Amino acid sequence: MPRPSVKEDIVAAALKVLHQRGFNATGVQDITDAAGVPKGSFYNHFESKEALGLEALARYWQGALGNLDVLKDERTAPLARLKAYFRRLNDLGRKLKYRPGCMIGNLSVEMSDQSPAIRESLVNILGSWSRAIEACVKEAQADGSLRRDLDAKSMAAFMLNSWEGAVLRSKVDRSDAALVAFEKIVFGSLAK
Amino acid sequence: MPRPSVKEDIVAAALKVLHQRGFNATGVQDITDAAGVPKGSFYNHFESKEALGLEALARYWQGALGNLDVLKDERTAPLARLKAYFRRLNDLGRKLKYRPGCMIGNLSVEMSDQSPAIRESLVNILGSWSRAIEACVKEAQADGSLRRDLDAKSMAAFMLNSWEGAVLRSKVDRSDAALVAFEKIVFGSLAK
Repeated sequence: MPRPSVKEDIVAAALKVLHQRGFNATGVQDITDAAGVPKGSFYNHFESKEALGLEALARYWQGALGNLDVLKDERTAPLARLKAYFRRLNDLGRKLKYRPGCMIGNLSVEMSDQSPAIRESLVNILGSWSRAIEACVKEAQADGSLRRDLDAKSMAAFMLNSWEGAVLRSKVDRSDAALVAFEKIVFGSLAK
Repeated sequence: MPRPSVKEDIVAAALKVLHQRGFNATGVQDITDAAGVPKGSFYNHFESKEALGLEALARYWQGALGNLDVLKDERTAPLARLKAYFRRLNDLGRKLKYRPGCMIGNLSVEMSDQSPAIRESLVNILGSWSRAIEACVKEAQADGSLRRDLDAKSMAAFMLNSWEGAVLRSKVDRSDAALVAFEKIVFGSLAK
């Protein structure tokens, strides 16, 4: 019977390696090497690299959910929560020297047109992520701190997509200039 | 002696295949097959897939330069030029059903941390692209149609990066919602 700890080791290694190198640059052997398990054990646990990619993506999103708590912290005004949320994400980028970027954005670019299953998972993740931001945008519009002439759903998706674009640019420039401009311009132009 | 037409066929095929599938999902054989030339001829013309990738990227940027003329058309007011420019890019995305995305953005995500040479080329391309937008942003600030409380350089880079983020999302959602929100919110919030 496959040992569950081996499966867990493979997922943990895949999360790291797929985030750093991307899906197509990573072979099954790279992952089993990183996990310190024999290559042969891989197919006891996963049908394919795609199946493992889906599990690693789900795991990454699970980890990202913790940050969303910032958006729900009712002790803080909603606009301040939105600012604190993106500041936290940008600080994570700084800590990693802008190199891996966001695994969700990376797979969006690399795999949307290559794997229907990964694209479907990304549709769901980006949809949930947008909705979490939207709830906070709605509160900020209600208390008058964000402009109301743009609908909350579009504004939330715009914030998320623009942030992904800033992360893309910070990967190229290895600098936080794009992340700083994102915070300054999004909140400078959408706040009332 | 290597035939120049073979080299040209390889670059043209690489441009198409690398744009559609990405760098790491594409093998040299995929490119020579698409070009209809023998695999063995590849290394007569290119040292490596990376060298060809650089040439294909340069070719893609050459093609994109034509669109930048929209930003320089002095018969049109600068803000209208900026709007027309991004509308044109978004129309290209629609025509391709949002699937390949922007090759510059794709390689930014996939290759920045994998190939120093490709990253360097992307730094230069994204820098030139930002500056072309910045020149038009400055004109629009000067004539009072774009807000002046945000510096032109950051605003231009923000527009470009946010557009790349919108393209990323449109690839996942296979819809133009993110592109439409980009135009509406960027110009709705930065215009005066």
